[in-house]
Amino acid sequence: MEIIRIPRILQDVAITHRMHGRKVGFVATMGALHEGHLSLVKMCREESDVAVVSIYVNPAQFGPSEDLAQYPRTLEEDREKLKKENVDILFLPDDSLMYPEGFSTCVEVGGLSGKLCGAFRPGHFRGVATVVAKLFQIVSPVRAYFGQKDYQQALIIRRLVKDLNMAVEVVVCPTVREADGLAMSSRNRYLGKEERQAATVIFQTLTKGSEAVRSGILKIDALEEEMCGMLRAEPLVSEIQYCSAYDPETLDEIGETSDTILLAVALKIGGTRLIDNMLVRRGAEK
Amino acid sequence: MEIIRIPRILQDVAITHRMHGRKVGFVATMGALHEGHLSLVKMCREESDVAVVSIYVNPAQFGPSEDLAQYPRTLEEDREKLKKENVDILFLPDDSLMYPEGFSTCVEVGGLSGKLCGAFRPGHFRGVATVVAKLFQIVSPVRAYFGQKDYQQALIIRRLVKDLNMAVEVVVCPTVREADGLAMSSRNRYLGKEERQAATVIFQTLTKGSEAVRSGILKIDALEEEMCGMLRAEPLVSEIQYCSAYDPETLDEIGETSDTILLAVALKIGGTRLIDNMLVRRGAEK
Repeated sequence: MEIIRIPRILQDVAITHRMHGRKVGFVATMGALHEGHLSLVKMCREESDVAVVSIYVNPAQFGPSEDLAQYPRTLEEDREKLKKENVDILFLPDDSLMYPEGFSTCVEVGGLSGKLCGAFRPGHFRGVATVVAKLFQIVSPVRAYFGQKDYQQALIIRRLVKDLNMAVEVVVCPTVREADGLAMSSRNRYLGKEERQAATVIFQTLTKGSEAVRSGILKIDALEEEMCGMLRAEPLVSEIQYCSAYDPETLDEIGETSDTILLAVALKIGGTRLIDNMLVRRGAEK
Repeated sequence: MEIIRIPRILQDVAITHRMHGRKVGFVATMGALHEGHLSLVKMCREESDVAVVSIYVNPAQFGPSEDLAQYPRTLEEDREKLKKENVDILFLPDDSLMYPEGFSTCVEVGGLSGKLCGAFRPGHFRGVATVVAKLFQIVSPVRAYFGQKDYQQALIIRRLVKDLNMAVEVVVCPTVREADGLAMSSRNRYLGKEERQAATVIFQTLTKGSEAVRSGILKIDALEEEMCGMLRAEPLVSEIQYCSAYDPETLDEIGETSDTILLAVALKIGGTRLIDNMLVRRGAEK
């Protein structure tokens, strides 16, 4: 596995690969790799001639009161894991090369970026869209792999790619979960033992919500009420940011007649912010 | 000369050219081609294996009170001119393909975009940056050619390319002028006969300013005063938007010690907005 730190060098390498007809696949990460990341890496490895993974904790997507400084950094372990997956290139840029002095451009996907997580993390998706636009230019992948756990992020990146005519296929892979259902996340490390136990309420709530949607019995208001009730019943949940059913394309409140529904939750357990979601087909209303 | 109207098709063609090691050169225009455009096209033709020119009047860079509807469209003549220059591909997209329903992404270069023309045309450079980002993805040129007449635009595109790690070299070509010095512009067509005569005051003013800068005699305040005085003396000048000496990199007011100076003017003659500029090296202060 080759390690490249300089954007321009990776760009030249990647363009050369493309010119030789080799398919470059790409997984963008912030490190602290878990099985969720590795499922993306495996898929990328399988489908690509050249598998590129980036580890870059992008400061532009963290708000001033967020966890940029304490975000977990586990580079040694990450490197071993990627080597085992036969990744070809690990891209490890630093801030001074990604955002050199004078940097002043941003990419913003309107509409979607202000909803759900965007309402609680102003500027977050602008930071994501900008760094992903940069990374796609540097890596020039044919395919890029993202996790469904960050559903809104994947949706925004799809929109970005379409709107800016980028020749990249965005592949969204299923959420990988712990045995008890908790979605894998680098931020799960922040959880104390009791908090970790309490966090299973998210999966339980989404599962309960999905069953209700599939059965077709519930109205949206009642569904939201039931889900929020389950979350509120867990004493370690300190804040529910959103928990409801949404249109999977627009992220707006869902209409009563929509076919596929996004159930999505963001909450805090202690100081740790967690998100999760499920896409569900609605059963026939009775 | 091949005419392509569909972004996706041009993208595939261009990527294939790049994969075969052919250098794609690109000139983005809004049509109504004059000798200024053609100088870019000639340079592009000379330096490229595949010369691509786009004609697209980009609605996103026009303000609501601007001249989008009456912007000159001379497609037949344009096509003949480009054929004569041995252009390989003419890209003629329409709005529904460039900004399809649901389009919601923008690219913005902060700082620079609010200065000079940006102060008088809010949103203009956001529209420019967004469409150029799109065009560069579609055409994937090795080099793209812009005119110095639109100095601020070229500076913003350079910044955009650098910030978003685009693998494009931005080449800025000298302003082409009429015999009496007026910078070629598609908007010169708007000028009546007397207005056209009056418009020469811009070149005269910039020339006078350049001489003063080269001689090193004048202070910036005095220089600005003299230049504005010349413009004001022309009765058909209905509005002076800016006219001064600027830092060629930041577009800020120039310091007294700067080496290279941008003299730039934007004004209206009747209802027609005209811009021009000159880059000058300052002589030794006496």
